[in-house]
Amino acid sequence: MIESLTTLQQRNNSQLDHWLSQFPHQDQPLLQAMRYGLLLGGKRARPYLVYITGQMLGCDLESLDTPASAVECIHAYSLIHDDLPAMDDDDLRRGQSTCHIKFDEATAILTGDALQTLAFTILAEGPLSESGESQRIKMVQALANASGAQGMCLGQALDLAAENRQVSLDELQQIHRNKTGALMKCAIRLGALAAGSKGVEILPQLDRFSDAIGLAFQVQDDILDIISDTETLGKPQGSDQELNKSTYPALLGLDGAINKARALLEEALQALSAIPYNTERLEEFARYVIERKN
Amino acid sequence: MIESLTTLQQRNNSQLDHWLSQFPHQDQPLLQAMRYGLLLGGKRARPYLVYITGQMLGCDLESLDTPASAVECIHAYSLIHDDLPAMDDDDLRRGQSTCHIKFDEATAILTGDALQTLAFTILAEGPLSESGESQRIKMVQALANASGAQGMCLGQALDLAAENRQVSLDELQQIHRNKTGALMKCAIRLGALAAGSKGVEILPQLDRFSDAIGLAFQVQDDILDIISDTETLGKPQGSDQELNKSTYPALLGLDGAINKARALLEEALQALSAIPYNTERLEEFARYVIERKN
Repeated sequence: MIESLTTLQQRNNSQLDHWLSQFPHQDQPLLQAMRYGLLLGGKRARPYLVYITGQMLGCDLESLDTPASAVECIHAYSLIHDDLPAMDDDDLRRGQSTCHIKFDEATAILTGDALQTLAFTILAEGPLSESGESQRIKMVQALANASGAQGMCLGQALDLAAENRQVSLDELQQIHRNKTGALMKCAIRLGALAAGSKGVEILPQLDRFSDAIGLAFQVQDDILDIISDTETLGKPQGSDQELNKSTYPALLGLDGAINKARALLEEALQALSAIPYNTERLEEFARYVIERKN
Repeated sequence: MIESLTTLQQRNNSQLDHWLSQFPHQDQPLLQAMRYGLLLGGKRARPYLVYITGQMLGCDLESLDTPASAVECIHAYSLIHDDLPAMDDDDLRRGQSTCHIKFDEATAILTGDALQTLAFTILAEGPLSESGESQRIKMVQALANASGAQGMCLGQALDLAAENRQVSLDELQQIHRNKTGALMKCAIRLGALAAGSKGVEILPQLDRFSDAIGLAFQVQDDILDIISDTETLGKPQGSDQELNKSTYPALLGLDGAINKARALLEEALQALSAIPYNTERLEEFARYVIERKN
């Protein structure tokens, strides 16, 4: 999987580079910061999910580039805004200065705004296969619903409201289903929609898989914040504790959190068993989510 | 025109209220701030342009609600982000506390983000006429292109880069064509696209009209910042000068700026003369742009 992930990361990077190159004023801080935020590092987990879901359903890579690029733009914008001083106030991201440190706050705000917009430009203009074309508006709808006030933005708002306060396991789950889970689920949905009606048919099973791995991803993030080191993480270790953020290890203990991650993996694998295609790479991804070190 | 504007403002407000009401977590600051930023005051100039352009081409109001609501969401988000401390640092907007003063900075950032997303949800999900339906993706494309790194966000970035520095008339024009003009032009385009191919046919003439009134709108804003008072404006009079912003009166003198606004009105009216429909309300709007007091 590692090699294939690298190939798809590079493919996604070159696609994103292509989209950025089409803008005027490449010398402006806005464009430089968009490039910085979008292309410097990152695991490309969401584009990867688009690619492997679509490929499972018989799509070629070309027909998946459009949704893969769009979802990464949303992810990159959310990181830039989350790192701002008024939000999580992080100086380091992916081992590099965050956007507002490298540039300035105003540029970071605008860069996030413009990357969100770019996601929708890409979905509106990018090439799709004939079966994907029939789902283009559904893709716009899926991405918008996953990103906004009933998805990622809501999750970040709930997360901020939960700082310095004990939250229940239910609340924590709701935060992360929105903050992290919604966009990962959307990535898988976009990969399915790119395959047309074949994909639409298995959306319920895919959603069940996504719900489980989206949450597992966050549980593992929380675990890594405790057991990993700053160099491996690319951001300061222990930063959740410093902000008094509620985490799975804080609520369940470290062992409890590790068990939770394993249970979610089991649930994800069960969901895959109901899908009549070769789900090997989705399974591999699910295992990677709870075995990764950064 | 005043009465008709009021009716359409109210119609747009109730549409936006309807979209906001569909979200969960209405008690959250994020949702309250979205409502505050979207519904409290505002001229609704962009929705109005959608409505009168579409009606000129024979659309009924119902088939124009969708693009009218979407474009206002983008406008509202841009105001919230522009007012942030790291950007223009304004405390007052439409005679009320700005979003980050009423709530807090983190909420204001997220609120802007979620309102941008809502614009695309509305374009993807909202009702359209049959001829408008065929242009739905073109509407998404038009709105994204007007908002992002080749439109509004670029304009704001260029504007920030021009602070405390003398800019040429050409540069100033480029700032405002992007910062204010792109979204007004988009509003008119959306109204035309909602009418299907009839609208597509007259896009060049409409664009020429929009370019002129979009710029005139900004010239008049600059003039009002000097000659109006804080109460009428709903924001502090003289705030451009305080920020050392380049303005048309600063470059052309007050009389020169007033003449520039009149010349742009003439150009707008000429563009309308090439349109084979009843352009009376667009003409009325163009006149209002340079005669308004706030």
